[in-house]
Amino acid sequence: MTKTLLSGDNLPNIPWEPRPPANGDVVWRYGKNPVIPRHATPTIDSIYNSAVVPFRGGFAGVFRCDDRSRNMTLRVGRSRDGIDFQIAEQRLEFSCDTPEIAQFLEGYDPRVVPLDGRYYVIWCNNYHGYTIGLGYTDDFERFHQLENAFLPFNRNGVLFPRRIGGEYMMLSRPSDAGHTPFGDIFLSHSKDLVYWGKHRHVMSPKRDGGLVNWQMTKIGAGPYPIETSEGWLLFYHGVLTTCNGFTYSMGAALLDLDKPWQVRYRTRPYLLSPDTLYENVGNTQNVLFPCAALTCAATGRIAIYYGAADTCTGLAFCQVDELFDFLKKNSEV
Amino acid sequence: MTKTLLSGDNLPNIPWEPRPPANGDVVWRYGKNPVIPRHATPTIDSIYNSAVVPFRGGFAGVFRCDDRSRNMTLRVGRSRDGIDFQIAEQRLEFSCDTPEIAQFLEGYDPRVVPLDGRYYVIWCNNYHGYTIGLGYTDDFERFHQLENAFLPFNRNGVLFPRRIGGEYMMLSRPSDAGHTPFGDIFLSHSKDLVYWGKHRHVMSPKRDGGLVNWQMTKIGAGPYPIETSEGWLLFYHGVLTTCNGFTYSMGAALLDLDKPWQVRYRTRPYLLSPDTLYENVGNTQNVLFPCAALTCAATGRIAIYYGAADTCTGLAFCQVDELFDFLKKNSEV
Amino acid sequence: MTKTLLSGDNLPNIPWEPRPPANGDVVWRYGKNPVIPRHATPTIDSIYNSAVVPFRGGFAGVFRCDDRSRNMTLRVGRSRDGIDFQIAEQRLEFSCDTPEIAQFLEGYDPRVVPLDGRYYVIWCNNYHGYTIGLGYTDDFERFHQLENAFLPFNRNGVLFPRRIGGEYMMLSRPSDAGHTPFGDIFLSHSKDLVYWGKHRHVMSPKRDGGLVNWQMTKIGAGPYPIETSEGWLLFYHGVLTTCNGFTYSMGAALLDLDKPWQVRYRTRPYLLSPDTLYENVGNTQNVLFPCAALTCAATGRIAIYYGAADTCTGLAFCQVDELFDFLKKNSEV
Amino acid sequence: MTKTLLSGDNLPNIPWEPRPPANGDVVWRYGKNPVIPRHATPTIDSIYNSAVVPFRGGFAGVFRCDDRSRNMTLRVGRSRDGIDFQIAEQRLEFSCDTPEIAQFLEGYDPRVVPLDGRYYVIWCNNYHGYTIGLGYTDDFERFHQLENAFLPFNRNGVLFPRRIGGEYMMLSRPSDAGHTPFGDIFLSHSKDLVYWGKHRHVMSPKRDGGLVNWQMTKIGAGPYPIETSEGWLLFYHGVLTTCNGFTYSMGAALLDLDKPWQVRYRTRPYLLSPDTLYENVGNTQNVLFPCAALTCAATGRIAIYYGAADTCTGLAFCQVDELFDFLKKNSEV
Amino acid sequence: MTKTLLSGDNLPNIPWEPRPPANGDVVWRYGKNPVIPRHATPTIDSIYNSAVVPFRGGFAGVFRCDDRSRNMTLRVGRSRDGIDFQIAEQRLEFSCDTPEIAQFLEGYDPRVVPLDGRYYVIWCNNYHGYTIGLGYTDDFERFHQLENAFLPFNRNGVLFPRRIGGEYMMLSRPSDAGHTPFGDIFLSHSKDLVYWGKHRHVMSPKRDGGLVNWQMTKIGAGPYPIETSEGWLLFYHGVLTTCNGFTYSMGAALLDLDKPWQVRYRTRPYLLSPDTLYENVGNTQNVLFPCAALTCAATGRIAIYYGAADTCTGLAFCQVDELFDFLKKNSEV
Amino acid sequence: MTKTLLSGDNLPNIPWEPRPPANGDVVWRYGKNPVIPRHATPTIDSIYNSAVVPFRGGFAGVFRCDDRSRNMTLRVGRSRDGIDFQIAEQRLEFSCDTPEIAQFLEGYDPRVVPLDGRYYVIWCNNYHGYTIGLGYTDDFERFHQLENAFLPFNRNGVLFPRRIGGEYMMLSRPSDAGHTPFGDIFLSHSKDLVYWGKHRHVMSPKRDGGLVNWQMTKIGAGPYPIETSEGWLLFYHGVLTTCNGFTYSMGAALLDLDKPWQVRYRTRPYLLSPDTLYENVGNTQNVLFPCAALTCAATGRIAIYYGAADTCTGLAFCQVDELFDFLKKNSEV
Repeated sequence: MTKTLLSGDNLPNIPWEPRPPANGDVVWRYGKNPVIPRHATPTIDSIYNSAVVPFRGGFAGVFRCDDRSRNMTLRVGRSRDGIDFQIAEQRLEFSCDTPEIAQFLEGYDPRVVPLDGRYYVIWCNNYHGYTIGLGYTDDFERFHQLENAFLPFNRNGVLFPRRIGGEYMMLSRPSDAGHTPFGDIFLSHSKDLVYWGKHRHVMSPKRDGGLVNWQMTKIGAGPYPIETSEGWLLFYHGVLTTCNGFTYSMGAALLDLDKPWQVRYRTRPYLLSPDTLYENVGNTQNVLFPCAALTCAATGRIAIYYGAADTCTGLAFCQVDELFDFLKKNSEV
Repeated sequence: MTKTLLSGDNLPNIPWEPRPPANGDVVWRYGKNPVIPRHATPTIDSIYNSAVVPFRGGFAGVFRCDDRSRNMTLRVGRSRDGIDFQIAEQRLEFSCDTPEIAQFLEGYDPRVVPLDGRYYVIWCNNYHGYTIGLGYTDDFERFHQLENAFLPFNRNGVLFPRRIGGEYMMLSRPSDAGHTPFGDIFLSHSKDLVYWGKHRHVMSPKRDGGLVNWQMTKIGAGPYPIETSEGWLLFYHGVLTTCNGFTYSMGAALLDLDKPWQVRYRTRPYLLSPDTLYENVGNTQNVLFPCAALTCAATGRIAIYYGAADTCTGLAFCQVDELFDFLKKNSEV
Repeated sequence: MTKTLLSGDNLPNIPWEPRPPANGDVVWRYGKNPVIPRHATPTIDSIYNSAVVPFRGGFAGVFRCDDRSRNMTLRVGRSRDGIDFQIAEQRLEFSCDTPEIAQFLEGYDPRVVPLDGRYYVIWCNNYHGYTIGLGYTDDFERFHQLENAFLPFNRNGVLFPRRIGGEYMMLSRPSDAGHTPFGDIFLSHSKDLVYWGKHRHVMSPKRDGGLVNWQMTKIGAGPYPIETSEGWLLFYHGVLTTCNGFTYSMGAALLDLDKPWQVRYRTRPYLLSPDTLYENVGNTQNVLFPCAALTCAATGRIAIYYGAADTCTGLAFCQVDELFDFLKKNSEV
Repeated sequence: MTKTLLSGDNLPNIPWEPRPPANGDVVWRYGKNPVIPRHATPTIDSIYNSAVVPFRGGFAGVFRCDDRSRNMTLRVGRSRDGIDFQIAEQRLEFSCDTPEIAQFLEGYDPRVVPLDGRYYVIWCNNYHGYTIGLGYTDDFERFHQLENAFLPFNRNGVLFPRRIGGEYMMLSRPSDAGHTPFGDIFLSHSKDLVYWGKHRHVMSPKRDGGLVNWQMTKIGAGPYPIETSEGWLLFYHGVLTTCNGFTYSMGAALLDLDKPWQVRYRTRPYLLSPDTLYENVGNTQNVLFPCAALTCAATGRIAIYYGAADTCTGLAFCQVDELFDFLKKNSEV
Repeated sequence: MTKTLLSGDNLPNIPWEPRPPANGDVVWRYGKNPVIPRHATPTIDSIYNSAVVPFRGGFAGVFRCDDRSRNMTLRVGRSRDGIDFQIAEQRLEFSCDTPEIAQFLEGYDPRVVPLDGRYYVIWCNNYHGYTIGLGYTDDFERFHQLENAFLPFNRNGVLFPRRIGGEYMMLSRPSDAGHTPFGDIFLSHSKDLVYWGKHRHVMSPKRDGGLVNWQMTKIGAGPYPIETSEGWLLFYHGVLTTCNGFTYSMGAALLDLDKPWQVRYRTRPYLLSPDTLYENVGNTQNVLFPCAALTCAATGRIAIYYGAADTCTGLAFCQVDELFDFLKKNSEV
Repeated sequence: MTKTLLSGDNLPNIPWEPRPPANGDVVWRYGKNPVIPRHATPTIDSIYNSAVVPFRGGFAGVFRCDDRSRNMTLRVGRSRDGIDFQIAEQRLEFSCDTPEIAQFLEGYDPRVVPLDGRYYVIWCNNYHGYTIGLGYTDDFERFHQLENAFLPFNRNGVLFPRRIGGEYMMLSRPSDAGHTPFGDIFLSHSKDLVYWGKHRHVMSPKRDGGLVNWQMTKIGAGPYPIETSEGWLLFYHGVLTTCNGFTYSMGAALLDLDKPWQVRYRTRPYLLSPDTLYENVGNTQNVLFPCAALTCAATGRIAIYYGAADTCTGLAFCQVDELFDFLKKNSEV
């Protein structure tokens, strides 16, 4: 067992591959990446920025699958081992009691969070502008859509996996109507997952001094926060703007357990940045976008799923102890 | 009494001036505009986009006063007749129980709404980006700040003056981090003025066909909605983008009484557009921005306060019957 | 009679006012400008950028009247003296034989050209983008719409008042889909006013050396060219971009009689630039936009109608001999 | 013989390769792509967006060859089999009778259309802005330049291979002066290939609802339309704007035989989108730009040449019956 | 004599007008502004942003006069009283020994500084981009041009009126190639007015916290620094960006006597901001741009010349004691 | 010995590889490129745009190493053969006597120039904006920082390796505060490396006629100029803007020996342009950026180090005779 206890899931069958000998990085890639190639099913253009959770002894997930019209759809996928996934041929459909929001136009960048015995799905939903859509499923077969959490324009909504101080909490990144060139992470409270308030600023891009860095343009929460004895472990993406576009990399932060809008540690360097052909080349070059993480408390293993180049899905691994050591030694809040 | 009953206030002493003989417009300007000149007090640069309500037999209000640093402050003002105002020399300060949001950096474009026996103040508040600040006063002396209603970026938050279906309702216009070149009006629900949800789209700029019109770029709610027998009367501003900048004009809409996100009528032409030197020239040329309206049910009179050229405050008048006739004959939802 | 013969009209009753004593400019303003104020009729917002021609002993014209929705409409106007105009309460409607283009969405910046015994109307027409609309009238009562001359995006189409070398000729300024920040004048040929070709470049903004000047951003033809013994006299507008927007001024050029895409003279300084309150302030500040000119060969008088601040209509005068002297002494092609 | 008759050429020796077994797509790539590599001749930087036609038992074409200055030149190429091409070492030169347009500055994105027993060349020509150049050859040795068809700014001009209703017809995409972020396809008529008129809107990018799709930014005609019993088959490119630039993909439409500005079918999904290293990486990443198609009526085979990444030339194949099935089942006009 | 000694000039005949009774501001306008109207001579469009110094018992200066081409020229002006100026009909010409820089294309925003017994002229000079031109005159008749001080892009170069620590010092504001939306003040050293180095940052726009203020976009030095017993008094302009363009206002700072890149005091509020028709309306609305100041040590009077709306020249006054009081009480460095 | 004498170093052990047989280009790549891969040391993200010089029988250099925060650092590297480099694990630190500029925030794109028996380091330094930092070392162990040469904003500062006419000379490219979309090369003089003046324009991007070419957007000096009998040989980069970003290629110019701001020859075509996976793909796609060259007078060999894709370092070779032949035959100044 590791020093830092990982609550939540304790998965003996988590996908795993040891760090390659020559690799000294705290996070390393799966050797057979992309774990899910772009043409995972014939009717899609690409599959990425997707959410995987343990489900009934195996794994299930909600995947961003851009179809051949490049429309952004959500689809269900299942896997025994977290490596080979069967992706649904049809887009995911939600039932919804509220006619005003029931028309599902687009969905992208989903997260799935186990909470109150259910699986909540959070995604970027188009309702007169992109905002945070919210729904749930019990079985990955029927899905029910709730009210959108916020007004447009918002992206990267991520629920915490339990109530804190009796309230639900959601991270999100307020945005604009385009390819937003800014973005801070905020946290909002709710008692019922319908009405949200008490909005708190969590963290900003690193703008200090104007120095170039990997997280200087915008940042956004990645997988849902992982509870540890020292705080909520949050993987997040940060964006650097080059003369030829955005580059998305991954870092991590540790949030206060009780007041998770307070950041205790935050990686100054990135953990992983586009550095392979499947991350550097594709629908959008130089994108590495984490959306899900699986953990094993007994071994301290973490497996991270991330979108690569807006095209396919990568997998990476780390050991929680090593990660905490790195985070604390390389922290700049 | 007019056909359309105006609930809310019934003010015999409402500021009023009959329509000039040669003027055929449904809304006409006060002859001595600007009713509040830019240097209403020596320490300010300008006073505009401000909120006036009846108070203890006279009038009180919260005013946007840009100081000589061009910092945007809120100040209290009082008047016996709604014409001559005494503006406070000091900026309005809120008490606040929540340290995370208590630091008051900037406030602009306030509205004041009588609700539940209090006066609620809504303004554009800078909390890591502009969003909707909320507070209240009982006496225009002590003010208390509540939680911000929404995440950034938002502007033009306007509360309804009573609960509808048991819930508070707020109009707002989601924005971006700059001089937003777009903007729709949305409506949000709340049971307690702290947590907000059930966000509904109300209306968009007139983009149909790409035809040039006065409300093609963005729109935003003005004075708080006025209850009538036929629906909520909403004055709002619309923006046209010329080759030399934005032009702000005023129109009106009638919203459903019970589902006020449903628009029943909406003026295709504007009601008032910058057309005088104090509206065309100043800190920002060509701005006419309504923020408050006073009504008299017995006579059907409405007096509208509006910011002019981001510099001073104008006053305009209309008769509710004439306005409804015009609105219905010139409506395009 | 003046040295340079003005063909075309010879109008004894042309509007005229001598140059004020203290004014040394070659073109001077009418003392009672704006000759047509913005509220010439109650249903319009503004009237400007409009075309006047002699008609049946008096004057008639097609006017750009933005209505109270700020929709851009064309309206007929008539006048006995060229000073007082009666503007139609209704927008001008064209009959049209071609259903594909018959839907008249918007029309602005009209010119009227007497040609082949008719009055041709050219305007900026919205057909999936702004392009050059074309029609004609015999009586300023019934108007017939022909095919659009060009593909979008185009503005400032101006016909020559007679065929040259057996062909009709049209000046125009190719544009983009917005508030175009560039623009040259081109000339196109036609045998039938339906099919156009043999496109020739006429002149560009003055970009040489990057030096600031009044015509550095874009230029566009104004009134239809006036035939003289020395060439076609073209008044045109030029645009300078300041840090706060565009400024429109007026200059003149003399085009070759037979090959009118060849420029013989062109004013290096402007003839008239926004310098009065009605030109500097209004819907768009700092706009002086000529669209029509009346001439009298016997006296050499020229009266120029121009839009002022996208709001009202101004009138200015010059003497053709003085103008030619100035043009030749201050020419830079 | 296929159900849908392909008029025009009937080429037994069309390049062809059957669909790979594992590939279910209606259009598939040539296995040895890029069929023409970037350094096809030593003096060029790249060769792409080019036009191939059957010629004297083999194939000839006009190719966009950017030289080592990155100047955009046209060059002649010849091939026996449509696979191996000999590209001229020198740029193509036109004779021209009109001095005003004879100076050939730049030429790019050519199409070649057999019409009236000749081979017409259409390209993007720089004449004070990009517009549609037009010329012809009988032998791919001597080329003669005609008048430019339109005023700037225009791109992607494509002639129909025969007169329709007695008139020549040209598709084109009006543009702006830069890397145009919009663009609809229009059709224009001509009786003589010199004067053009009767401009008709054909189709727009898919803007409906603001939903992301592969053809949401701009579209442009590709190879010249192929006559079939059911209409003109048009391959076209569509553009999606990501946060890191444009992506060009290929779709198809079926235009009415007699009124080819009326679209009968149009692919909602793309047919082919950048998905290989030579399409994703190069001078401009993520470009797949079709410019020519060869057909065989007897077998229903179609071979499509397309530019890849603004760098080299790809080849793809389809069967007309399968294509029509797909087009009709996946159509959204 | 005032408490703070003003070295430099001691002018009994400085233009002066007492503060109007109702005016409580520390700086007040001349009652007959604009002191120099836009048509000060017939051949110019406008006269503003200009430099006045005491000269031979009266006053002389170098003025920015945009001619009727809107070319930016420098012209000499003379005055007995500092109120009525005779402006030269011809543009100022420099002799120059260095052919590489001798071609004088444009000159604008001049300053004149008495130094080493001469009058140095500094202006914004176009040498492959705007940079700081430098020259001198002894008599305001013959002018000699020296080397440009810096590389492009630079504006608002201002020399100190004496050497400090044995070196010449120049303030400037590095810029970009357009209407620069940023700008800090720097200081550079020179031993010979030809070679410059030891560049020091002086002050930035007020960006702290993103709060709106009058000097948030860019700042630039105005008149040459005035030596006082407490430091160098620098009037400067600051710019605010509204949705409709830039607004230029005036503030003041006190720089260290020996290390003048160190700011001791700086006005948080502005001293003067566009608030009259001649400042709000003209070639560029809302510009108040100080370029020269005259001082009288005996009386403590300061007269400030400033450009108004890029059109004409205004004059304003203050008392040095009052100014220092204000500066110290309202300082935020 | 070659016809054109290469002064400076005469290195028998220069890295070298003959031109591959099939390659007819005047400059060819090293077959084992990237000569320095991105992960040359574990603590960096990338290594590129770096400077190598002969040092004590081997080679030393200053390298741009972006660390894992993507902060831009300088690091020392050493090599015996110019192929295998040992890169320091720590960032290079300068001693500095001037507290105002001693804080070293960022450094990038270094050049190293042997001059006066020392090695001068020039880099892009962040001092309230990017400008040209300057320092020196004698041993590549201790480095001393001098004054910044210029005011911001500047990049690509390159010293000449000896005084000319008794003065030091520096090339640079004035820039703006972002990813500058323009840029000319200038030359400045100094007598002491502290004060700079006599700024001369050297050359501009090729804007003539608006024709697309590889050096149309901006240009910047590469390795320090190489003295030859015919002038200073300057390798430089040029930038083309595609719809998807900048492309950086390499050309060469020959500058006058005594007045090196006068260009005698300049390559119209590029010498090398991104054309391999390591140049087309990486942190910034399509970048080929030369920063250092090694020469051997006896053999006429030149080895050029260049940054590839802002990720790794490439090596290329040429023969000076062949290069001069090419330059003269393909010159367009």
